[in-house]
Amino acid sequence: MTTIAPRLHPTPGHPVPGGDLAALFAPRGIAVVGASRAPGKLGAAMARSLSGFAGRGGHFALVNSRDTALYPNVAAAAADGPIDLAVLCVPAPACPSALADAAEAGARAAVVCGGGFAEAGGDGIAHQRALAAVTADTGIRLLGPNTSGFIAPHAGVTASFVAGAAHLRPGKVAVVAASGGVNHALAFLFAEAGHGVSLAVGLGNGVDVTAPDVLDHLADDPETTAVALHVESVSDGPRLVSAVARLTPRKPVVALVVGRHDIGEFAASHTGNLATSWRTTRAALTQAGAVVVGDERELVDAVSALATTRLHPAADPGVGVLTAQAGPGLLLLDDLRGRAARVPELTPNTQNALSELLPPLTFQRNPVDTGRPGPEISQVFATVAADPAVDVLAAYALHEPDAIDLVAAIVGADTGGVPVVVGLGGTGEAVEAGRRSLLEAGIPATTDPRGVAAAIGALLTDAQARHREPDRPRRGQSVPDDVTGPHDENQAKDLLDRLGIATPPRRVCDSHSAARVALTELGGRVAVKVLDAHVLHKTDIGGVHLGVSTPDDLEAALRALDAVGARRYLIERMAPSGVDLVLGARRDPVFGPIVLLGLGGTTAEALADVAIRLAPVSASDAAAMPRELAGAALLDGWRGGPVLDTAALGETAAALGDLLAANPALEEIEVNPLRLTSNGLVALDAVIITHQDHKREADDAQPDQ
Amino acid sequence: MTTIAPRLHPTPGHPVPGGDLAALFAPRGIAVVGASRAPGKLGAAMARSLSGFAGRGGHFALVNSRDTALYPNVAAAAADGPIDLAVLCVPAPACPSALADAAEAGARAAVVCGGGFAEAGGDGIAHQRALAAVTADTGIRLLGPNTSGFIAPHAGVTASFVAGAAHLRPGKVAVVAASGGVNHALAFLFAEAGHGVSLAVGLGNGVDVTAPDVLDHLADDPETTAVALHVESVSDGPRLVSAVARLTPRKPVVALVVGRHDIGEFAASHTGNLATSWRTTRAALTQAGAVVVGDERELVDAVSALATTRLHPAADPGVGVLTAQAGPGLLLLDDLRGRAARVPELTPNTQNALSELLPPLTFQRNPVDTGRPGPEISQVFATVAADPAVDVLAAYALHEPDAIDLVAAIVGADTGGVPVVVGLGGTGEAVEAGRRSLLEAGIPATTDPRGVAAAIGALLTDAQARHREPDRPRRGQSVPDDVTGPHDENQAKDLLDRLGIATPPRRVCDSHSAARVALTELGGRVAVKVLDAHVLHKTDIGGVHLGVSTPDDLEAALRALDAVGARRYLIERMAPSGVDLVLGARRDPVFGPIVLLGLGGTTAEALADVAIRLAPVSASDAAAMPRELAGAALLDGWRGGPVLDTAALGETAAALGDLLAANPALEEIEVNPLRLTSNGLVALDAVIITHQDHKREADDAQPDQ
Repeated sequence: MTTIAPRLHPTPGHPVPGGDLAALFAPRGIAVVGASRAPGKLGAAMARSLSGFAGRGGHFALVNSRDTALYPNVAAAAADGPIDLAVLCVPAPACPSALADAAEAGARAAVVCGGGFAEAGGDGIAHQRALAAVTADTGIRLLGPNTSGFIAPHAGVTASFVAGAAHLRPGKVAVVAASGGVNHALAFLFAEAGHGVSLAVGLGNGVDVTAPDVLDHLADDPETTAVALHVESVSDGPRLVSAVARLTPRKPVVALVVGRHDIGEFAASHTGNLATSWRTTRAALTQAGAVVVGDERELVDAVSALATTRLHPAADPGVGVLTAQAGPGLLLLDDLRGRAARVPELTPNTQNALSELLPPLTFQRNPVDTGRPGPEISQVFATVAADPAVDVLAAYALHEPDAIDLVAAIVGADTGGVPVVVGLGGTGEAVEAGRRSLLEAGIPATTDPRGVAAAIGALLTDAQARHREPDRPRRGQSVPDDVTGPHDENQAKDLLDRLGIATPPRRVCDSHSAARVALTELGGRVAVKVLDAHVLHKTDIGGVHLGVSTPDDLEAALRALDAVGARRYLIERMAPSGVDLVLGARRDPVFGPIVLLGLGGTTAEALADVAIRLAPVSASDAAAMPRELAGAALLDGWRGGPVLDTAALGETAAALGDLLAANPALEEIEVNPLRLTSNGLVALDAVIITHQDHKREADDAQPDQ
Repeated sequence: MTTIAPRLHPTPGHPVPGGDLAALFAPRGIAVVGASRAPGKLGAAMARSLSGFAGRGGHFALVNSRDTALYPNVAAAAADGPIDLAVLCVPAPACPSALADAAEAGARAAVVCGGGFAEAGGDGIAHQRALAAVTADTGIRLLGPNTSGFIAPHAGVTASFVAGAAHLRPGKVAVVAASGGVNHALAFLFAEAGHGVSLAVGLGNGVDVTAPDVLDHLADDPETTAVALHVESVSDGPRLVSAVARLTPRKPVVALVVGRHDIGEFAASHTGNLATSWRTTRAALTQAGAVVVGDERELVDAVSALATTRLHPAADPGVGVLTAQAGPGLLLLDDLRGRAARVPELTPNTQNALSELLPPLTFQRNPVDTGRPGPEISQVFATVAADPAVDVLAAYALHEPDAIDLVAAIVGADTGGVPVVVGLGGTGEAVEAGRRSLLEAGIPATTDPRGVAAAIGALLTDAQARHREPDRPRRGQSVPDDVTGPHDENQAKDLLDRLGIATPPRRVCDSHSAARVALTELGGRVAVKVLDAHVLHKTDIGGVHLGVSTPDDLEAALRALDAVGARRYLIERMAPSGVDLVLGARRDPVFGPIVLLGLGGTTAEALADVAIRLAPVSASDAAAMPRELAGAALLDGWRGGPVLDTAALGETAAALGDLLAANPALEEIEVNPLRLTSNGLVALDAVIITHQDHKREADDAQPDQ
C-alpha cells in the first residue's frame, strides 16, 4: 500500500523547469543571420522589424557571409558587443550549423522562423532532429522552427516578419500560441480591444522552447498580468499542467484549445504533430487553474478582464447586474445564466436603498434596471456593490451624454473594491474614448452584453479555480499498489470493496448446489452471471440472468450458463433500480492517468457526455464532475428519484484515480454501471484491464473522449 | 377526411397584413407633442434628434400647449403643412388623448417612447388599453409605447432620444428589435462593423405596430438588403411566421431570440409579456426561412454577410477555405466543422492547378494554405472558386503589406460570382481601410476566424433554407378530420395505421380464452397489456407484461392484469429491439400545432434534446429533424444497429402534424416509443389526448420544450 503524491502541487523550492529565457525575450544583443537587403526576403523583413532594437541602443548585428557590408558570422558580431539572441533567416538545411555557430559564438538563444522541418516531412524531419541535437549539445535555447516569431515590446524586440507587429504597444497581456499566425492574430485582437502586450510568442514546431517554458518565464515577468494560451497539440501533458498550475495562483491563464472537431489532416500538416484529445486537454488545463474558453473572442474578453482585475477566491461569487436598458440587460442576464453565474436577489436593505435612488417602476432585485441613468448612478453602483451577496458588478449602458457622463460616474463610484465590468454601447470617438478611460481606471470595458458576460464568466471561473483546495493526498486514505491482472468480476469487486466502493452482496459458486445455497443466503431476487476473467462482455454471450428468485429459475439460468461454457458462477443480490453512471480511470497517452464520469446508456455514450479529471484528483474536485454532465439533472432527484451524494462520488472517483496512479501495471478500471440508488452508489459491474490483458476490448470500452 | 392547407405558403394576391407604414417611417411632416426647451426632458431630446428632418426641408413642428412659442396642438401644426407622424412626449396618462388629437388632426402614425404602461402594471395597463382603443377607432398606426423609438436615416428621421442615433449612417441593414435598447445597441454594433442602417426600430410594448408589420414594410423597402430581428416574446406566432416566410425569399432575415435560460421575472417586468418558448420560437423562425443565431455578435456577422451577398439556394453548399497562416486556418476550419459546413476535398484538377501556384509544402486539398501570400493570390482565389464543389470562399490572412496588397488581390480575383468572406487580421488604420475596401467591393470582411465562420455559417443556412421545398400539402395524402376522444391504445394504433404508421400485429381480447387464441395466432413472444382509454401510464400500475410466449405465462399475466382491474386485454407481437424515439404533435399556445421528435429514455428527456417543427410540415422538412438531435449518431447505425430511414420518419412526422392541424378537438398525440428496428419504424405505444380528456396527465407527458 502506498499514498499518492499529487502531481499538481508544486514542491516548494523545486527549480522551475525550462530555465531562464531572458536571453531570448530580453537580449542584450541580437544578430540576424542571413540578413538580406532584398526587400522580399525573410532576412530583410526580420532586419527591418528588429531595427527598433538598435534604435533603443541594443547591440544589433546583421550577419551574412555573402554580403561584405555585413558581419560575416555571429562570432564577428559578438566581438563588437554581446550577442544573446541569433535570429536565423537561412534555409532549413543550413539552420543546424548556423545554430551551432551561434552557440559557439556565445549566443544563448535563437529563433528559426522558416519552415521546411517536421511539418514538411521528408528531409525536414532530419533537419528538425539536427536542430534538436544542437540545442541538447550546446544548451542554446531555440524558439521554432516554423513560427512567425515573437514580440517583446517592453524590451523593444520584434522578432517577427509580420508587418504591424512592430506597432504593438507594450502592455500587460502575454500571448503564448502554438502557432505563429495565431500569436499575431491574437496580439492584434488585443490591440483592437485596447490592450498592449508584454510578450507574444508563437511556438511553431517547438523543438526546444515549448509552452511550459514560456509560462514559467512569465511567472516572474513583472510586466505580465494575464496570459492567453493557444493550444494545438500537447507533447508533454504533465509538464504543461504543472506549469499552468504553478502560474495560475500568481497570474490568470486563459486557454483556447483547437480541435473540437475533426481537423486532423490539416492539423498534422501544420506542425507534424498528432492532435491531442480536445476534451482531455481542456479538462487538464481547467484542473490546473486555467480559464478555458471556446473561441478567440471569448479569449480576448476573458484576458482583457483578467489582465485588469481578479476576484477574491470564492466557491460561487455573486454577480450584481446593472443595466440602463432592459432589453440589453435581458441579453446579458440570459448569457450569464448560460455560464451558470449566480445573480442573487439583493437584500431588502439594498433594495430599500435602491428604491430611494431609482424611479419606482424599474426592476431592482437584481438585475437592477437603472432606467435612464442620471447623477444618482454612482450611488447605485456603490449600493449594489455593498450588498453582501455581490462580489462583482456587470453593467451595460448605451452612451447617453445628454443624460449623464456615465464613464465619470462609474469611475467615480465607490464600490469598495468590488470589481466592475462595463459594456458601453455606442459608436464613434467619444464612445471609444469612454471605453479607454474605463480600462485605464481598471474597469474592463466592452462593446456589447456578450462581451460583459464573457468577461464576468472568466472572472468567476478564475475565482472558483483559486478557491478549490489544492490537490493533496486524501488524508487517511491508501490504495493497493500491487494490482496485477487478470481480474474476474468478483476480484474486481473485491478490489472496489477495498477502495471503499459499495458492491452488492454476492457469492462465488463452482457448482449448482453451491449456487442454491447462495440463493437462500442472499434472499430475494439475484443476478446469476458467468464468472470468468476472460469474458469482459458477459451480456453479449448470454452470460447474465437477472431477477432470479426461485430454485427452478436458478437451475434454468445455471444450465444456460453451462451451455456457454461457464465453470464458475457469481450469484449476486439484485440492486434497487436507479440511475446508472459509468465511472472509470484510464491512461491518456499525453496526460497520464485520468478519471472519467458519464451517464450510463447508449444515449449518453452517443453524446460523449463525459467529465474528465487528471489523476490523482482530490475528492472535492472530483465531486464537481457530475455538474459538468449535460444530463446532470438526472442525478438530482429527477422525477422523484434518488439524489446523488456528490461527496461520496468524489471519494469514489478519487480512489479510482489513486489506484491507477499507484499501479503502473494497471491500464484501466471501469465501473459500469455504478448505480445511483436510494441507498447510495453501488458498483454493479467492474472491469479491470492490466498491461498483460492484451487490451482485447479496449476498442469499445468507453465513449470517445 | 380533409387535405391540409399549409400555413407558411403565402396566398398570391393576399393583401399584406399591417398595411402601409410609410407615414411612420417616411413621413412628410412630423409634430413633436410635448416638445420642451428644458434640456433634460424627453421632449427636448426628441426635438433635438429630429431637428435634422427640418434641415432636409420636411415640415417639422414643435407642439406644446403650455409654451406660447410653439404650436398649441397638432391641428395648428397641420395647418402649416402635412403632419403624418406625431411623436408623443407626454406622460402616460395624457398619451391616449394626445394620440386621439393627433389622429383627429390628420396624423396617420405616432410614436410613444415613454414608459408607465403595461410593463409598469397598475394604472399603466389601463393607459395601454386606452392607446389600443384609439388606434382601433382611428386607424392611426402607433409605435410603442415604452421604446426608444426608431431611426430611418434615408428619410432623415431620428425618432430616438439616444444621443448618437442621429449619427448612424444610411445603409442596407434593417434592425427590428423587441426592445428599444437592443435596437440601438445593434445599430451601433453594425456601425462598428462598417454598416449603415436602412431602418432601426424598437417595438417596445407593441400595442399596434409589431414585428410582422415592420417585416412586411421592409419587403418593399428598396434600401434594405438584410434584416436583423430581435425577439423577446411573441404574441401572434402564426402572423410572425408568415411575415418572415414572406420576406425571406426576397431578403435574408437573421433572428436572435432571447430567453434560453430562466430570465422570467425580469423579462416580465420589461414589457409585461410572458416569455415565449425559446426552442419553439427558434424552430418556427428557422422553418420560416430565418437564420437563427445565438448571440448579438453572431447576429452582426451574419447580417453583415447577408446584407452584402447571398448564395444560390443549395442543399449543402461546399466551402473553399483559404488561409495564409495555418494556425488561424485551423481555428476557422474547426469552427466551420462545428457549424456542419461542408469543406469538400478539391478535385485533382484544382489541386494540380494550385500546385503550379503555391509552394510544394503547403496543404492544398481544402483548406488551401497559401503560405505567405504573393502576387499569385488572385489566381489562387480564382482557382479554388472554379472548383465545381465550391460554392463560397472563406479566407483568413494577416495584413502583410510587405508581401502583397492583399485587399487589391482579393478584390481583383475573378471568382466567377462565387462569394468570398474575408477575415483580415491586423490593427491600425491601414487594416481598417482594407476591411472597408473589401466591404465596398461586396466582400464581407471581419477581424478574426470566428467572424468568418459565423458569416459563412449564415450564408449556408440561408442558402439551405431557400433550397427547401416550400411547405405544401403532401400530395395524395389525407388525414382523418373526425378524431374525438377518448382513445384506448388499440384505437390510437388503428389511427396510426390509417396514417400509414406501422404498428405491431395485435388482438383485442375480452376474455382469457380469446387471449389464448391470440397468442397462438400471433405466435412467438407477445406483450400482454391492460386496454383502457382511461389508463395512460399502464406500466406504472403493472399493466404491461412483456415477452410472454407460453399459455402458462399468459395466464399468469392475465391474472395479474385482472388484479389491477383490467376488463380487456391487448395482446401484441413483441417488436424487435432497436432505438426508441418519441414522436408527438401538440398545440403550442403561441404557434399552434407543432411536431416534436426526441430520443427515448430519461437521458434524452433530461437533456431536452428535441427537434421541433410547426405543423403542417412537409415530409422533406420533417425528414431533417433527426439530424438536429444531439444524439443523432444513435440513429445512423450506432454500433451496428439499424439506420433510420429519414424519409419514412419525415412522412410519419408530417402525418402527425397534419392530423393535429385537421382536428381542432385533438390536443396532443404522442407515439412513445416509436422504435427504430432493422425492419423500419414501429409505433409501440401511442397516447391521444383530446380536449374532452381533462388532460389528466399533461404534466408529465413530454420533456420541456
